[in-house]
Amino acid sequence: MENYQRIIEEIYSDLKSIEDTGKVANYIPELGSISADNFGINITTIDTKSFGIGNYKDKFSIQSISKILCLTLAYKLEGEKLWERIDVEPSGNPFNSLLQLESDCGKPRNPFINAGAIVVCDILISHLKSPKENFLSFCRDISNNTTLHYSEKVAKSEKKTGFRNVALCNFIKSFDNIKNNVDEVLDFYFHICSLEMSCKELSQIFLFLTDDNFRNHKGDRILTMAQAKRVNAIMLTCGFYDESGEFAFRVGLPGKSGVGGGIVAIHPDKYCIAVWSPKLNKKGNSYKGMLFLEKFTTKTASSIF
Amino acid sequence: MENYQRIIEEIYSDLKSIEDTGKVANYIPELGSISADNFGINITTIDTKSFGIGNYKDKFSIQSISKILCLTLAYKLEGEKLWERIDVEPSGNPFNSLLQLESDCGKPRNPFINAGAIVVCDILISHLKSPKENFLSFCRDISNNTTLHYSEKVAKSEKKTGFRNVALCNFIKSFDNIKNNVDEVLDFYFHICSLEMSCKELSQIFLFLTDDNFRNHKGDRILTMAQAKRVNAIMLTCGFYDESGEFAFRVGLPGKSGVGGGIVAIHPDKYCIAVWSPKLNKKGNSYKGMLFLEKFTTKTASSIF
Amino acid sequence: MENYQRIIEEIYSDLKSIEDTGKVANYIPELGSISADNFGINITTIDTKSFGIGNYKDKFSIQSISKILCLTLAYKLEGEKLWERIDVEPSGNPFNSLLQLESDCGKPRNPFINAGAIVVCDILISHLKSPKENFLSFCRDISNNTTLHYSEKVAKSEKKTGFRNVALCNFIKSFDNIKNNVDEVLDFYFHICSLEMSCKELSQIFLFLTDDNFRNHKGDRILTMAQAKRVNAIMLTCGFYDESGEFAFRVGLPGKSGVGGGIVAIHPDKYCIAVWSPKLNKKGNSYKGMLFLEKFTTKTASSIF
Amino acid sequence: MENYQRIIEEIYSDLKSIEDTGKVANYIPELGSISADNFGINITTIDTKSFGIGNYKDKFSIQSISKILCLTLAYKLEGEKLWERIDVEPSGNPFNSLLQLESDCGKPRNPFINAGAIVVCDILISHLKSPKENFLSFCRDISNNTTLHYSEKVAKSEKKTGFRNVALCNFIKSFDNIKNNVDEVLDFYFHICSLEMSCKELSQIFLFLTDDNFRNHKGDRILTMAQAKRVNAIMLTCGFYDESGEFAFRVGLPGKSGVGGGIVAIHPDKYCIAVWSPKLNKKGNSYKGMLFLEKFTTKTASSIF
Repeated sequence: MENYQRIIEEIYSDLKSIEDTGKVANYIPELGSISADNFGINITTIDTKSFGIGNYKDKFSIQSISKILCLTLAYKLEGEKLWERIDVEPSGNPFNSLLQLESDCGKPRNPFINAGAIVVCDILISHLKSPKENFLSFCRDISNNTTLHYSEKVAKSEKKTGFRNVALCNFIKSFDNIKNNVDEVLDFYFHICSLEMSCKELSQIFLFLTDDNFRNHKGDRILTMAQAKRVNAIMLTCGFYDESGEFAFRVGLPGKSGVGGGIVAIHPDKYCIAVWSPKLNKKGNSYKGMLFLEKFTTKTASSIF
Repeated sequence: MENYQRIIEEIYSDLKSIEDTGKVANYIPELGSISADNFGINITTIDTKSFGIGNYKDKFSIQSISKILCLTLAYKLEGEKLWERIDVEPSGNPFNSLLQLESDCGKPRNPFINAGAIVVCDILISHLKSPKENFLSFCRDISNNTTLHYSEKVAKSEKKTGFRNVALCNFIKSFDNIKNNVDEVLDFYFHICSLEMSCKELSQIFLFLTDDNFRNHKGDRILTMAQAKRVNAIMLTCGFYDESGEFAFRVGLPGKSGVGGGIVAIHPDKYCIAVWSPKLNKKGNSYKGMLFLEKFTTKTASSIF
Repeated sequence: MENYQRIIEEIYSDLKSIEDTGKVANYIPELGSISADNFGINITTIDTKSFGIGNYKDKFSIQSISKILCLTLAYKLEGEKLWERIDVEPSGNPFNSLLQLESDCGKPRNPFINAGAIVVCDILISHLKSPKENFLSFCRDISNNTTLHYSEKVAKSEKKTGFRNVALCNFIKSFDNIKNNVDEVLDFYFHICSLEMSCKELSQIFLFLTDDNFRNHKGDRILTMAQAKRVNAIMLTCGFYDESGEFAFRVGLPGKSGVGGGIVAIHPDKYCIAVWSPKLNKKGNSYKGMLFLEKFTTKTASSIF
Repeated sequence: MENYQRIIEEIYSDLKSIEDTGKVANYIPELGSISADNFGINITTIDTKSFGIGNYKDKFSIQSISKILCLTLAYKLEGEKLWERIDVEPSGNPFNSLLQLESDCGKPRNPFINAGAIVVCDILISHLKSPKENFLSFCRDISNNTTLHYSEKVAKSEKKTGFRNVALCNFIKSFDNIKNNVDEVLDFYFHICSLEMSCKELSQIFLFLTDDNFRNHKGDRILTMAQAKRVNAIMLTCGFYDESGEFAFRVGLPGKSGVGGGIVAIHPDKYCIAVWSPKLNKKGNSYKGMLFLEKFTTKTASSIF
């Protein structure tokens, strides 16, 4: 086994003080108040060993990273029928673009752009009795972590300013690819985005995408092996909006970023790693986070390619 | 080791006679004359064992698969500077689209759409004395195979009807991202696309993307390990035009298709596999080829995810 | 003076029974219940002579035709500053497209596509104390017609199904080109679209765009001469969505259509004509209405070109 | 009759020395060498009175203004069948955009963008024995002006650098909407653009669009009255690329600009006016030319609206 602790410490200290040209996301007011200095990393191996450095125990807003959990539950409930309403193609466009929806008649390109995640939320609402509670329970069960919670403050903040997402949801509804009430779908979506976790928690909750034999504390499988592989595939081609190719090129792992500055990356059969640094590059992905992961897979020669 | 011979035979016989809803490409007249019944597979493992079935020894027009070779030589000669003129992002658009070039100011999204490959050809011309001869020698050297050749007939046929590619090249030139004479660039591009190989030859020539320690018969490395991984990453995110996500999702390997009906896929550290079946689906990728590879990675559980 | 009565009767009887390949708009449920057989025409000359035929006295939902009135009031109140928030260019796209808004950063192409009219409504709300009442008074004052009213039924029907317009409004708000509350803007917009008038009333209310010296019954000018000419210019280039060129080409007058099947056209210095026939062509404009007007300007040689 | 001479002299002296924020077109090297100070105006009335000021007798490269002549001859030869291959809609995009051609399957939006004019040239080649000679004779016959000629220097200069137009022509050919040899079509197109005329000559040659009863010196009609009106309509909606709406709004006349800095505008039944000032605004239209015409139609109250 690699000496992961030493490696993450080395890269951490290399990057801790470099100039960070990124900017903290401020379009959700609540996110803008986070200190830009936060920098944390945690890796959890398939045999559940855990190594952390920096602010790896501090909870932050995981934002779009929660789209993986959202997709996971919908895939579990809906099976392959899911793909009748969402595609699995990279979009080549920013995360909140409405452009392609028009030519694609309301079928989002993939579940990791906002449009796609909103449709996934709509599907979950059709399945779940108490969507917000049930989804939270699902997340807690995967990770055996009862401290997971939404941030009502962030959810509210996003609701107040999330005009683009309201536009997306209504636009998709106009193509009849939203079945439930728009307000309910958006409320659910904003809550899901407001989930808070630490790097340590993130690297644990996604072990089920790393380990083919993963079972939660109750002994349940989360996804079939084939399904987990497919989620990883979509993360690799679509996890970073119009920078997905760049992440695959530089880092070489399936991953997903959030505007809170978090990134999760998966090495099938080896580990799950989570990085947090709030300043984002122009494409909306953590500047230092991407840099860290590039150095990490280079040092450990653990790109999947 | 897996019993590859048995597995490919099984899938081959399962698929041999299924209804194939695809269509042989006819926009290049020469390609339209190929029998749609051809069906061949060859796998070569990292330890150079080779297993074939069907028409695996018949040469066919590899078309866009040659874009990998083209990129490889340019990457070798130009290094990371290459990416100043071509991006590494999936395009979300068909292979010969001009749409994004306009908003991207003449910088192609990736080296595997026509626009990108044409810029790669331009770069090669700036480096090589006798581009067509030098490129062919390079290919022969990788595979220690002196029988590789262009099809003058196909190159000529493409030149006569390739108005879209002429448009692409002139369009990029108008953004000053083509440095050489347009006619020379296109002549070179059409020749590269006209390369002919069998599945057996294809699965051998791309071993350098599978084996980190690959050296050709002269003892030379083709690319550095990091470069080879990056080429694989681009194949995964961009190898199948606007069906790249679907291929990653269903097959789970880096790969590249050609309108001649060929597909090459790479499993890093394990094998290279080539399939040939001329009928293409609506996105321009071999219908049976994709199906074969999906069944193959399922049976062998060898998706990289 | 032309014998307008005879001419409209002739064309009316020519077209009354032709096969109408159009379709009644049904995306607003209330509109779908209108009988497709309605066919009315009214012309009012600059010296206020009026000639009608068919259902020219029946009120119908004027829908987008009200965008002219809306623009007129905003232009009166805001002057040339108005154009900082809306452009005057044809869009080349359907009436409810979101495409260009993205590249144009939330500035609608013109006041006659939905996006533009929604911004105009937002501007009016910033100026008016009781927007709905004040706007209605303005319309009644122009035409000295106290019977003008909104259809609450249609406004409500549109609110329930107008997801595309909700999307547009929120999308523009995300670019900060909507200043007021989205729900209030949309409520106002849906009411404006629900105005009901007959062909006779329509051809009277728009006389102010025909007659340089027009004053309403109180002796007030509606717009300056220059402003009226500019409204006519925008009608000519933008009044029929992506069929504006076709209307200018075939009819040769400034005009504006609505999905209720109405069309208004202006001949500066001569007349205003209104046609109503509910079946719409593929571009969303009255099929028979366009045909009628083409024949009318041909017979009267009164294209402005 | 207006005192046109006095009016143009007044506006000329008002504008002669204002700061001109425009730039001389330099993408065709030959055009870049023209002195930016040139400023000429000529108006010819329907009763053939002519009034000029400044450099109104100097010939310059009329460039895209020749698209009107090109369209006129094709319309005369082909009749309404012409519109099966070109549309009459404003494009909402710059003059040399390829974007819409892709979604419109190779049918140009209108005859006044480059794509449309190239298709018109293709149609002319199919009709004419010696296209370049025949077209020139046609122009000379309209205006009874044997001094009209192409500039071989400009045509050659454009051929050397016109990659975007080569791209357009090949792109349209790929949709099968170019029937002749691409090189021949482009050679013809570049020659047509290289026509040289003075403001005086321009305001005379387009009288046939002003006067319903126009006959040339041989007593021949150029177009039917209906056809002439339709050409005017297309000029109004499409004559200034993505600034067509702005020109209609500010000037209120059908018109056409060229990158040589010329603008021609038509008042049906009154006059034809030509302005020349080489510096172009960002949309590629003469900065001073547009300003002059705006002041002119305001002073003479001769907008068609």
